[in-house]
Amino acid sequence: MKCKRCRRAEAAVELPSHHSAFCPDCFFVFFRRQVTEGIRKLRLLAPEDRVLVCVSGGKDSLVLWDVLIDEGYETEGLYIDLGIDGYSDRSKEKVLAYAASRGKTPIVVELAKEGIPIPEAARCVRMQECSICGTVKRYFFNRVAAEGKFTVVATGHNLDDETARLLGNLLHWQRDHLARQHPLLPEADGGLVRKVKPLWRVSEIETAAYGFLKGIDYVTEECPMSEDATSLVYKEALSRIEDRMPGTRIVFYQGFLDPSNPLRKGPEAAADGNMAREDAPAADALRAAEGDGEGGAGPPQVCVECGAPTYTETCSFCRLKERVRKARSLRVARVSR
Amino acid sequence: MKCKRCRRAEAAVELPSHHSAFCPDCFFVFFRRQVTEGIRKLRLLAPEDRVLVCVSGGKDSLVLWDVLIDEGYETEGLYIDLGIDGYSDRSKEKVLAYAASRGKTPIVVELAKEGIPIPEAARCVRMQECSICGTVKRYFFNRVAAEGKFTVVATGHNLDDETARLLGNLLHWQRDHLARQHPLLPEADGGLVRKVKPLWRVSEIETAAYGFLKGIDYVTEECPMSEDATSLVYKEALSRIEDRMPGTRIVFYQGFLDPSNPLRKGPEAAADGNMAREDAPAADALRAAEGDGEGGAGPPQVCVECGAPTYTETCSFCRLKERVRKARSLRVARVSR
Repeated sequence: MKCKRCRRAEAAVELPSHHSAFCPDCFFVFFRRQVTEGIRKLRLLAPEDRVLVCVSGGKDSLVLWDVLIDEGYETEGLYIDLGIDGYSDRSKEKVLAYAASRGKTPIVVELAKEGIPIPEAARCVRMQECSICGTVKRYFFNRVAAEGKFTVVATGHNLDDETARLLGNLLHWQRDHLARQHPLLPEADGGLVRKVKPLWRVSEIETAAYGFLKGIDYVTEECPMSEDATSLVYKEALSRIEDRMPGTRIVFYQGFLDPSNPLRKGPEAAADGNMAREDAPAADALRAAEGDGEGGAGPPQVCVECGAPTYTETCSFCRLKERVRKARSLRVARVSR
Repeated sequence: MKCKRCRRAEAAVELPSHHSAFCPDCFFVFFRRQVTEGIRKLRLLAPEDRVLVCVSGGKDSLVLWDVLIDEGYETEGLYIDLGIDGYSDRSKEKVLAYAASRGKTPIVVELAKEGIPIPEAARCVRMQECSICGTVKRYFFNRVAAEGKFTVVATGHNLDDETARLLGNLLHWQRDHLARQHPLLPEADGGLVRKVKPLWRVSEIETAAYGFLKGIDYVTEECPMSEDATSLVYKEALSRIEDRMPGTRIVFYQGFLDPSNPLRKGPEAAADGNMAREDAPAADALRAAEGDGEGGAGPPQVCVECGAPTYTETCSFCRLKERVRKARSLRVARVSR
């Protein structure tokens, strides 16, 4: 099949959802246009932004970084080493190699050095790994952004991620989550940096094809801690629908984002969501939600330990760290007896 | 495994969505309770109702009739013979046999005699069979209900049907359909009878188990005209989610029906929907919808041909019949030349 854009070269990527097929060069143009359109439509980024790109070593985040560099944004990569045997080393290697290929050195946070490597922390506090990981990552997104004077944090969530989450929220009618789900969480008082998902318009397959054709080397293995089976179930269900009815995912997500959709509140909801959903533990989220999304809960306080935004005296990250520290010293005490 | 209700008999039906398993007798009690609870919660039926039960010969509608008879409702069955070779004969046979077993004689409408057998009509007017079938059935539901002084029409749509439709409406954000999707469409001016779906709380598997254990003989083949692939795709996607997360379907549908759900309008929307969605062709639905669901489109007029409710001079059924008649006479003319 010939490329539908240049009509000369052989097509390398077929995209039923766009009734199209592209040769590599035309696909790069198409893909980048999808991303820049996604940025423009929702005003995710401005030319003067300093962008902190969160890179895990997987395809989505490395592709995101690649496109943002090519588009001329001022970017730095942030790699959080979760301290997972083997997997973390392999993903760090990919991040460093990619960064070097673009003349960059990523900012690296090592959770082992920070006293909170995910596997040990999960054992110590008996919480799900993904839940701890989320809290810790969000904490460092805000902290590193503040320290490095970044104006925005970008993550590599793609259309498949966002629609899977949307489907899950709809199946259970999680109305507060629905009101706040958006590729843009505006900056909020108390040190909450703006967060954006510039890949919201492109599918997982498109991102993978872009990474492959660009020769970006990424980790293909899933995080071994990740047992987030529910989101995989939703993703798979949507994939089967998409296979039969190409284009369903983007129609679904764009229709959801439509400002006239009664499930969405105004931008205040999203701003509030920056604290309520992504940066705060459940109790804080509840308090913020009780303030009916209009900031009624007031601006967050400052954590007495670290200065991070929080609705409680100590932020969720510091409390987590303290619980891990206590559990550790208990164990040491037991061993030394 | 023992029955979780009586704890004596061997369980015959396992229901992960209810964390339960029942012997046949306890399952009958459970199933009937699910149906009567569904009727009670949404006030679908009153004891004094005369119920016209639409029976196709499939499991859902025969099980519905069975439960309504057992619950003491005054019911008659309506079988519409679609005029589909073989299939229609086989399903009529099942309906007549079941009806006889309960000392009943169903009302039978033969579309061939009415001049509009589905396969021929579809060929004549070049419309999808399912679309014609819907128009024709809705017409006869209202007509037979009026002639027989029935106060309500009941159809056998189950939880799987309703959630598949809900998912489709959500994936495409069909807001007018969403506002009107409900197991109860109230009676409306101009001869639109109340329509109810008393099986909305029970799944397809539960209905099939009830039919099987009760010894109700039903057609298992799907309608050969039915190429409604989209609803099957949604059904299958939801089945995969339900398998992994039992109980998702009922949570999904009940959360949707919650009156506080912003996607639902008040009962007027449903009343309006009786005309707009189910009894009118697309153009009529649009006009009714333009009346913002508050009856702004005014009450329907009366069809000049048959007296049925319509927003146009001639109702959609009569227009369809006329198109079939013309196409037929054209063909006869061609053959005789």
